[in-house]
Amino acid sequence: MKDLESLSASQAVKALSKREIKASDLLLSCLDRIGQRESTVKAWVSLGKENALARAKQLDKGAIQGLLHGLPIGVKDLFDTYDLPTAYGSPIYQNNYPRADAVSIALMRQAGGIILGKTVTTEFATFKGGVTTNPHNSKHTPGGSSSGSAAAVADFMVPLATGSQTAGSIIRPASYCGVVGFKPSLGKISIAGVKSLSISLDTLGCFGRSVEDVALGIAAMSGDHQLANVKDLHNKPRIGICKTANWSYAQKETATALAVARHAAESICKGTVVDQKLAKACNGLTQAQTNIMLSEMSRSLIFERTHFPKKINPLISKLLNDGAHISYEQYAKDLLMVERAKASVADLFNNEIDILIAPSATGEAPLIKDGTGDPIFCRDWSMLGLPCINLNVASGPHGLPVGVQLIAGPGKDQFLLSAARAFALALPDPVLRDQA
Amino acid sequence: MKDLESLSASQAVKALSKREIKASDLLLSCLDRIGQRESTVKAWVSLGKENALARAKQLDKGAIQGLLHGLPIGVKDLFDTYDLPTAYGSPIYQNNYPRADAVSIALMRQAGGIILGKTVTTEFATFKGGVTTNPHNSKHTPGGSSSGSAAAVADFMVPLATGSQTAGSIIRPASYCGVVGFKPSLGKISIAGVKSLSISLDTLGCFGRSVEDVALGIAAMSGDHQLANVKDLHNKPRIGICKTANWSYAQKETATALAVARHAAESICKGTVVDQKLAKACNGLTQAQTNIMLSEMSRSLIFERTHFPKKINPLISKLLNDGAHISYEQYAKDLLMVERAKASVADLFNNEIDILIAPSATGEAPLIKDGTGDPIFCRDWSMLGLPCINLNVASGPHGLPVGVQLIAGPGKDQFLLSAARAFALALPDPVLRDQA
Repeated sequence: MKDLESLSASQAVKALSKREIKASDLLLSCLDRIGQRESTVKAWVSLGKENALARAKQLDKGAIQGLLHGLPIGVKDLFDTYDLPTAYGSPIYQNNYPRADAVSIALMRQAGGIILGKTVTTEFATFKGGVTTNPHNSKHTPGGSSSGSAAAVADFMVPLATGSQTAGSIIRPASYCGVVGFKPSLGKISIAGVKSLSISLDTLGCFGRSVEDVALGIAAMSGDHQLANVKDLHNKPRIGICKTANWSYAQKETATALAVARHAAESICKGTVVDQKLAKACNGLTQAQTNIMLSEMSRSLIFERTHFPKKINPLISKLLNDGAHISYEQYAKDLLMVERAKASVADLFNNEIDILIAPSATGEAPLIKDGTGDPIFCRDWSMLGLPCINLNVASGPHGLPVGVQLIAGPGKDQFLLSAARAFALALPDPVLRDQA
Repeated sequence: MKDLESLSASQAVKALSKREIKASDLLLSCLDRIGQRESTVKAWVSLGKENALARAKQLDKGAIQGLLHGLPIGVKDLFDTYDLPTAYGSPIYQNNYPRADAVSIALMRQAGGIILGKTVTTEFATFKGGVTTNPHNSKHTPGGSSSGSAAAVADFMVPLATGSQTAGSIIRPASYCGVVGFKPSLGKISIAGVKSLSISLDTLGCFGRSVEDVALGIAAMSGDHQLANVKDLHNKPRIGICKTANWSYAQKETATALAVARHAAESICKGTVVDQKLAKACNGLTQAQTNIMLSEMSRSLIFERTHFPKKINPLISKLLNDGAHISYEQYAKDLLMVERAKASVADLFNNEIDILIAPSATGEAPLIKDGTGDPIFCRDWSMLGLPCINLNVASGPHGLPVGVQLIAGPGKDQFLLSAARAFALALPDPVLRDQA
């Protein structure tokens, strides 16, 4: 078999469950690709080659196991795994072997997924970049914090990989690497067994090369297996472009991406695409997200701050100290403000709009020396707990991918997947349409 | 020093922070009491005597550390601790040494709390009783799942202990053991590092012997230090008695407890105490809680179900299988129903009432052979995510304590503590008034 590694997750699972291809062959193709490219991309912290191969052979012989039968999966090293070390991107957790899988990983394995290895995360999923490079140009960042997962999927090392988002850690690297990234509604997937940063924000999700791929991933991770079946839209959705209050951060290519997105949206929406502002209740939301994240992180990492202060990167230490200096009163005020913002956005989605389209990032991936990029265009949507999906629609001055995110109302994950597929099919370029 | 173990947590902390007593003396008094009573009460899974004593001596010499300076604390063995094994009540996790403390425990230590040991939890915090007995009568259960914590505090082994509630695991054992138990609002305390059962329900809290004690505990566990300062009520609250839709389960002593509570409430409330029913949107809430808990637990424990099926108690296995057979569609429907119920209850607390008083349990503690008791009177409030506090108000036919729970609107933890103290001061018996 040749080129099995280029199959998307949904294509691979279809072929695997019809026994047209073998899980062990697919796995070996992925390992081949990793062998060729890992020295450049550096997406992996560890590989569980032998366990994965044994499991693949077992699945090739046994009954069809579930939604992910025989599919190799990359797991962000923020998720606990019982058979691979889990370091959360931190030297504090070297040689940490958790006793159990994160709930979402155990569910993926139960659905027949094969955990191939752990992918690079930034330190405690913050901004301090890891070693991973952007597969499209190794001088550029893949984004963070789910750096290795986004890069591995973009580079055809693995068809599906898990991620987590607190500020912009799924949508931004998906945009930088040109893959589909899905952050479902807050609470859709159990965060148990994933290093906790911010209880009001931490959301798990995944990367794939098509809408159907991420639907499959989220279906398995959440237990909501119906999500895997991406349905056709029954009615034309009302679509709005939301430039957000942070539009001044958008580079030219992000404006281009929104223009391309608007054009595609026009062809699938009810009436015309509107320019949608959020209600006044959302003023200050980006700052509130930043405060809440820092305040909660300073508490979530209190054990590490107490016992291993010197093993935390000084920039992150500073961030955590900043968080510890936000008063609880301010934090409580910010949480109240967020409640009001959530209510206003729920109203918006109930009454006026079905899908919002917004920038995924400020532009194409920055150079590695400049960091993992700014999550500013993701902060609001993370704080609102809304399902978001990144689709690649354009490219930047260095030819790197630039995405937009589609956003639906709270809990409307299934509808968002349907709308995203319709949107992808309306994109101008056949390669972009492959994301459907 | 004599009888230091009988000091309440807030009394002890006051004396410790004025250097009137030594942390090491208090600790030794607690250890003495444990030495005398543990063979009967069996509240502890493990004791960290040497580490605790070393820490106490350190605190006696050093600066005042924080809210819990020098206070010995019992930790439910569902919470991770880096220096004591953590088994979640399950043989699967024998000799499990987590790499880090649960966030709430690290925060208690940062505030100067001394972790004295781990207290008995039922297996995975479900109904399968541990070895602990009720300190008031060893033939009776202390309740579950926070069995050891409630019993240790009731028996003067330790002034403060942590608990967690998914159905009725704080309020019920507090009632059975005659101590003050506080389950704050859902999300008030980070659940990171505590074994996850049900992401929509799991809530952390604590046990003490007074309202001020639990205020202190929750202040440290949450980082909301203002909570420790229980304020006087400025206005008379509107109070309602809510017998709930499950009133047919109430035994005679629970009816007596509500009558006592009504009388005390009359003397502190605005107007008269009303009989308050929940809105129609709450019909079926108890069943929805049961479904959601079982469905989420079947996923949360998927790793254990897959790898160690024979090390799970057969009754719990059956429960988890029942949960796995609840369709995701039913689960999603139940979650939607809960959203509507939450909105109706938020309206009720905004417009009509400040405090509800409801039964904590069906009656006094059952015999050990009959299990850990029925959480039915706690399920609704756990599902609604409301702050609840148990106060001891009466006794049953065997002379065992019987409590009621006071409940406030979402996020009104501070107000609830103030109301609970005023309520306790209005109780007929001076011993009961000591709970203030």
